[in-house]
Amino acid sequence: MAIITLGTMAFDAIETPFGKIDKIVGGSATYVAYSASHLTQPIQQISIVGNDFPDEEMNELKKRNVQLTGVEIVADQKSFFWSGKYHLDMNSRDTLITDLNVLANFKPKVPEEYQGAEFLMLGNLMPGLQISVIEQLRTRPKLVVLDTMNFWMETALDDLKKVLGMVDVLMINDSEARQLSGEFSLVKSAKRILQMGPKFLVIKKGEHGALLFHEDHVFFAPALPLEDVFDPTGAGDSFAGGFIGHIAKTKDISFENMKTAIIVGSALASFCVEKFGPQRLKEITKQDIDTRLSEFVQLVNFDIDLV
Amino acid sequence: MAIITLGTMAFDAIETPFGKIDKIVGGSATYVAYSASHLTQPIQQISIVGNDFPDEEMNELKKRNVQLTGVEIVADQKSFFWSGKYHLDMNSRDTLITDLNVLANFKPKVPEEYQGAEFLMLGNLMPGLQISVIEQLRTRPKLVVLDTMNFWMETALDDLKKVLGMVDVLMINDSEARQLSGEFSLVKSAKRILQMGPKFLVIKKGEHGALLFHEDHVFFAPALPLEDVFDPTGAGDSFAGGFIGHIAKTKDISFENMKTAIIVGSALASFCVEKFGPQRLKEITKQDIDTRLSEFVQLVNFDIDLV
Repeated sequence: MAIITLGTMAFDAIETPFGKIDKIVGGSATYVAYSASHLTQPIQQISIVGNDFPDEEMNELKKRNVQLTGVEIVADQKSFFWSGKYHLDMNSRDTLITDLNVLANFKPKVPEEYQGAEFLMLGNLMPGLQISVIEQLRTRPKLVVLDTMNFWMETALDDLKKVLGMVDVLMINDSEARQLSGEFSLVKSAKRILQMGPKFLVIKKGEHGALLFHEDHVFFAPALPLEDVFDPTGAGDSFAGGFIGHIAKTKDISFENMKTAIIVGSALASFCVEKFGPQRLKEITKQDIDTRLSEFVQLVNFDIDLV
Repeated sequence: MAIITLGTMAFDAIETPFGKIDKIVGGSATYVAYSASHLTQPIQQISIVGNDFPDEEMNELKKRNVQLTGVEIVADQKSFFWSGKYHLDMNSRDTLITDLNVLANFKPKVPEEYQGAEFLMLGNLMPGLQISVIEQLRTRPKLVVLDTMNFWMETALDDLKKVLGMVDVLMINDSEARQLSGEFSLVKSAKRILQMGPKFLVIKKGEHGALLFHEDHVFFAPALPLEDVFDPTGAGDSFAGGFIGHIAKTKDISFENMKTAIIVGSALASFCVEKFGPQRLKEITKQDIDTRLSEFVQLVNFDIDLV
């Protein structure tokens, strides 16, 4: 089942307590595409790159049936560049450099052949661009998932509130949920945010797992306890890709199936953090994913006798 | 099945972002006893109090078949007093006052009628006193559980290491696990700590749940997402009480059953934090506990098809 993904395709420079890399392919749409394509195909990408984005990367994506008709290539400019440094706990980071480059004038266009896609993953990007893509679709997808971040709460809150009214699922992290709702308790945060538009809310807590809220229901998915988290960059995007990939594969948008989708997303994210960039997402097989999913089952499975 | 519990019976003064109380009954053994007695009886308490510890509290405990033969009452001194203030996130706190009072000269004595108990819960206390109780028991219990804290790592590390070699299960929080092991990754911390003596390690992460490590296995139990955490004092002790209470009730010390015990401990802890002191632990019924346990099942239950 086709998934349209909107987001960045970029270069990152990353420093973690365990290593440093000056230039590696990144971007929200790149991670979403590599992750989701393990579960369903095609992925219909909407993004923008400069003249420096490597052909090999484009070919790697095409091999996975990631369609690139919607990826604009700007001949005389550079791709978006982000540089960040992680703290020891790996849950927080400082942004060192943000060179928008091609992103400064990005006007996403939905190619004709993408029309009719049943699933839309709005990766982290300016909310105005996310709105523009929704508005270009002649048939509303069965499920629209939105990823966003604190930066847009601070710089584009009106647009962000507008797009919140247009989507089904919102994914943010715990501090962003607190910022958006003005509530410290995540349960109270969720109640407020579910009144802003989305019917489902995923709150990501990094190494502490993720919560899914819907009406009065809540589901908790753990993160796999890992010996080492090498590079968290793209973990949230990989999570989103695994989530929408599972939903598209099963064509089931029920709360029950979203629980499973969150476990699948957590499994994909757990691979992502093992190496710099999207490298691990390129290497893993269906067998690797299934093995990890059964580790999740083991991790939380318990018997209780309520008499 | 009888459980011997060692720990403090005390007064606390508590300040949280939601309220303040100048004097309320507390102490690790008090919380463990109230919590465990919901699951199994008798509880055989070993502790010390001054002339100020309320008769009503003693009677409340006796009503729950908490035996107090092992609780020394010092006629001319005051009970242990602790005062603390919680930060907004409720996961961290400052200790304001610690008046040892009767605790300064505490020499725990195991009453003859406690001999033969199959389970021993060593609540948070000086490691030397924990050792003394183990050494007084003529028959080693089937399971010995140890709760401790960073303060003893800093002031009594030799005794702490000795007692680690004498117990089956260690319970500490995430920062204490890092401090004790010198490792930041909790998975690596667990490996080191399991080499220090205990066969099972529970790492408590407050609102982020708890992990159980044993050999190469790991189990994760979530904390229930609560609208409000009113007062976290005693949550760790209530968790310990629920854990050992379930184990004693079922007489099953397997890894599989410890998973369930951790869920039961988490449920008891989730009640404890709803009011100041052990109040909620006195109010709740078996029905309340069962209802909460089924909320835990709902919280983590998911279906996955590994084909």
